Parts: sequence; structure tokens; C-alpha cells
Amino acid sequence: MKCKVCKATAVVALPSHNTGFCADCFMSFYERSVERSIRRQKLFTFEDKILVALSGGKDSLACALVLKKLGYNVHGLHIDLAIPDSSAAARGVVERFCAANEIPLIVKEMEQEGLQIPRVRNVLSRSVCSACGRIKRYFFNKVAINEGYTALATGHNLDDEIARLFSNTLRWDIPHLSDQGPLLEAENGFARKVRPLFRLTEFENANYAFLNDIEYHYAPCPYSPGATSTAYKKLWNQLEEEMPGRKLAFYTAFLAHGREPFRQFEKTEGTKPVPCERCGYPTSAGICGVCRTRDAVAAGDE
Amino acid sequence: MKCKVCKATAVVALPSHNTGFCADCFMSFYERSVERSIRRQKLFTFEDKILVALSGGKDSLACALVLKKLGYNVHGLHIDLAIPDSSAAARGVVERFCAANEIPLIVKEMEQEGLQIPRVRNVLSRSVCSACGRIKRYFFNKVAINEGYTALATGHNLDDEIARLFSNTLRWDIPHLSDQGPLLEAENGFARKVRPLFRLTEFENANYAFLNDIEYHYAPCPYSPGATSTAYKKLWNQLEEEMPGRKLAFYTAFLAHGREPFRQFEKTEGTKPVPCERCGYPTSAGICGVCRTRDAVAAGDE
Repeated sequence: MKCKVCKATAVVALPSHNTGFCADCFMSFYERSVERSIRRQKLFTFEDKILVALSGGKDSLACALVLKKLGYNVHGLHIDLAIPDSSAAARGVVERFCAANEIPLIVKEMEQEGLQIPRVRNVLSRSVCSACGRIKRYFFNKVAINEGYTALATGHNLDDEIARLFSNTLRWDIPHLSDQGPLLEAENGFARKVRPLFRLTEFENANYAFLNDIEYHYAPCPYSPGATSTAYKKLWNQLEEEMPGRKLAFYTAFLAHGREPFRQFEKTEGTKPVPCERCGYPTSAGICGVCRTRDAVAAGDE
Repeated sequence: MKCKVCKATAVVALPSHNTGFCADCFMSFYERSVERSIRRQKLFTFEDKILVALSGGKDSLACALVLKKLGYNVHGLHIDLAIPDSSAAARGVVERFCAANEIPLIVKEMEQEGLQIPRVRNVLSRSVCSACGRIKRYFFNKVAINEGYTALATGHNLDDEIARLFSNTLRWDIPHLSDQGPLLEAENGFARKVRPLFRLTEFENANYAFLNDIEYHYAPCPYSPGATSTAYKKLWNQLEEEMPGRKLAFYTAFLAHGREPFRQFEKTEGTKPVPCERCGYPTSAGICGVCRTRDAVAAGDE
């Protein structure tokens, strides 16, 4: 196969676009695709002060790198979860990446917050994954708001978005469906959230990370079993293989007209979050989940 | 495996219900399931005059048989499409079935209507499937209304419903999503439509047909290539195998709360059909698709 643009030998094949690229042309394709997503979805501008959540995985690092290359004002945020071995390795990757790319980095240590994940795990009867996700979102949001960032960016790719949209759809979860998309405006105490990589697949991000020599952390979390979303990703990869372009078509049709009925419904029937009585973070009622987890961990010490 | 009810040897295994049945207990399970669907979804009562659309396939015949056994007032309607070999065989099956089960039968011949499918196919540039479907729905509706039936029943099973719901969801087709379900009230010139088998899978219908010695027409249509819905059915069977009960959960969650936002949206933003200027059948504007097809076939004769 030859590169669609310059006719050199292609190194990346993209069946869903019915095309292939050499390394340099793939990078241009990738960067233009991100730039177009940002512009068309009005995610942010060059005036915005953007905080990128950096786990150390390929998607979050690719996200920070492409935004930096495109000239945006980018800072990084890493949450150190204090999981033995795993967290130190991830943090090292993020620190080296930010130093090499001149991206200012904030590290938030869960040990100092009394929320180290191994101890959170000890006080829970069920899997720690949803509590861990909640804690990360909590601090992403808190740091973005407290430090005056105008957008909080995450590296969610098309496969993540599709798996989540599919899971929300299977349950017909109207509140989550009405909120899904590459842009969530600041509202009710939440920061403005953006997902600039939403049009790019996991495969495309992996290629971008590889071709840019990004060192990334790819060990699976030692606490995470095979998630349901993995089964959905497998299923969608199969569908995409049979009908190239299906993923993006499903997602863009959702944004273009599928989501609006859910939004209108939520506007009249949905509930608005209120500030947590303890920390002020938006929650459904009373004391938020993270404060309750913090209490449980502290009680476990007594 | 033993029958869940009577402990005899099971002949039908139902992983999605985590159970199995002997022949007699499976029939009871099937019939009670249909009866429950009819009652819970308020599909019809013993006072209704029900017209069942009979293609000659296992689902439509199973539908007519179970309604008859449950004591409902059931008549049959068969559309003779005039497809060489195939249509005569299907019609023969339906005629023998209705005679054996004392179900009055109406046969509507497309040749007499100037809509024999081979000639419809000749005047179309694309696949005949969607035109054929439209013609069948047109006459189901017309006969039901003209002959005073209070409900038009079809044998759509859970797999059909899931494939259709999934296809509508992939395209986020709001008008069709807002209309999907086991009951469509009579409205805008359309008959009241019911799908009493919506909770039962294709596999369960095939077993019911087999255990009742129903002779059915199972040759695939000679004009129909592998439909897209076949790919969706395959995918959903795989999902069901990994997570038994997924199909029914997706569909019932849609009915319980997924559909409402689409309905509310359509009520304010949707368009209402108007009567065809020629035949009075509801259509979006002007002359309906079936009248236009009839004209095209007639013009092909000149």
C-alpha cells in the first residue's frame, strides 16, 4: 500500500477511512484531525488555559503532545494513586514526558489526601474501579477549578467513547446519554470538560504515540479485572471490520441528532446536582461519594 | 439437564432464563409468556377481532397458533407476492395451516393489484426488499382497516425487535425509535399494530413451531441477499451468549424509559403523515410509495 498523500510506502493502514499513510503524512493527518475536532466542536481556543489529565497511558500523553504541538497553552495533571509498583512507574513516565516536552505538571498525591487506592480498596466490599474513577474525576475537576484552568482535557478516544455510548445505550441511561460528548460546558460546579481525541481510534493514538517515540505506561491496573467495556470494544471492532466507518458514524450521528431528545428530556425531568455539604463538590444530595470514601478510609485506621 | 417444572428430561435449554424445559412444560412456558405480554402491554383483549399477518414462516404461524390456543378471535391474512416457486409454496403452507387450525384466511394477490414482486423488481434500480416490505405493510394495514379488525398482529420475535432497535439506534433514527415497540395505537390512518411474540426469541419460536408439528415455509426469499439485520442478529447472539439476558434487558429498558425522550421529542418536532392523494393511505406528502410503484409497474407494461 502507498501513502495516500505522498505515495511513499504506507506504514499505517486506516480501513475506516479507506486509506493509508506514511509516518509523516499520518502525523499530519492525526494533527489536522484533532485541530478540526477542536474547531468544529468549539472545544477551546488559543486563549484557553488547558489542563490535561495525564495517567501515563498512550492516549493521555498523545493528547497533551498533540495540543502542545498545535500551539495550545497546555499544563498536565497527574493523580498519584499510590498503588504499589504501578503508580510510581506511571508517575515516572508522566514526569519524564512533561520535562521533555516543557509541559508544566501538577501532581496530586492520593496518599496525602487520605485516599490511597490500596486502602480505599480495603474498606470496600465491591471492586474498587468505580470509586477510583470517582476519585480521579473529583481531583481533575477540583484542580481545574481551583487553579483557574478554563478547560479540562482528557485523552478519551473514539473506542472509549463508543464503548461508553454503547453501555449507556444498552441501559438507556438518559442522564448519562444527555451528558455524553466531546464537550461539557462548565455548569453546576463542574469544570468545562473536553475530549479532543474523540474522532481518533485507539489504534490511531497508539500509532501517533509510537511514531512520536512517546514512552508510555501500559501495564494494566493490578486491581482491574477484564472490564465489561472490553467486551463492548471487541464487539465494536468486529462491527467496524465488517462495516468500516460504523464507529464514527454511530458517534457523530449521536452528536448530530441522537442526543438532543435526551437533553430536552433531562432539562424538564432531570435533577440538578447540589454542593456537597462537606467539600462543596457537586453531588446528588448530602455528602459526596469522595468525602464518604475518605471517612471510610480514616475509620479503617482507628 | 432436567425440566425446571416437572424434573423430566429437558428438551429445550434456555440460558437467558438460566433454565430448561421438557416439551409440555416448554409449551406452557411459551404460552404463558405470550399471555403475560398481551396483558402487561395491554395489546388486546378477548373482545378484539385480530388479523394475523401470515407469511408462512415459523414466527407468523406460531403467533397465529398461540393466539388461537389462548382463545383469542384470530383471522389470518396472507399476501401472495407472485414470486415464482417461492410464493406458491408459502401460500400452500398458510392455507393448510389455517384449514387445519380453523383460522379464517384472507389471501391478497399482488398479481391482481398490479404489484407482483418480479415486475416491481424489474422497474427498480436498487434491491426490491424495501419496496416489497412497504407493499406488505400497505396491504396489512388496508385489509385490517377495511375489514374492521381492531388489531393487526405480526410474528416479530425478540431477535427481530432487537435487530431493528439496534439498527434504528445506530442511525439514531428518532421517528422510528419513537414508534418502536410491541404496541402502536391506531393513529393517522394506521391500524392498531401489535407484536405479541416480542419477548420470545427466534429459537423459542422455532421450538414452539417444531413441538407443535407446524409445517412452515423456510426457504429464504430468492430476491433477498444477506440482510444487514443478519449481521446485527449474529452480533447480538454473541453478546447474549457472553451475557445471558442482555437482549431482553436492552429491549425492556427501552420500553420502560429509553423510548419516552424520543416520543416527547417527536411530539413537538416530528411531522404527521397525510393521506395519499390517490389512495388515502398515510404518507409524508403527495402520492404514496405503493401508488408510485404501481404506476411504475404499469408504465413498464406499455
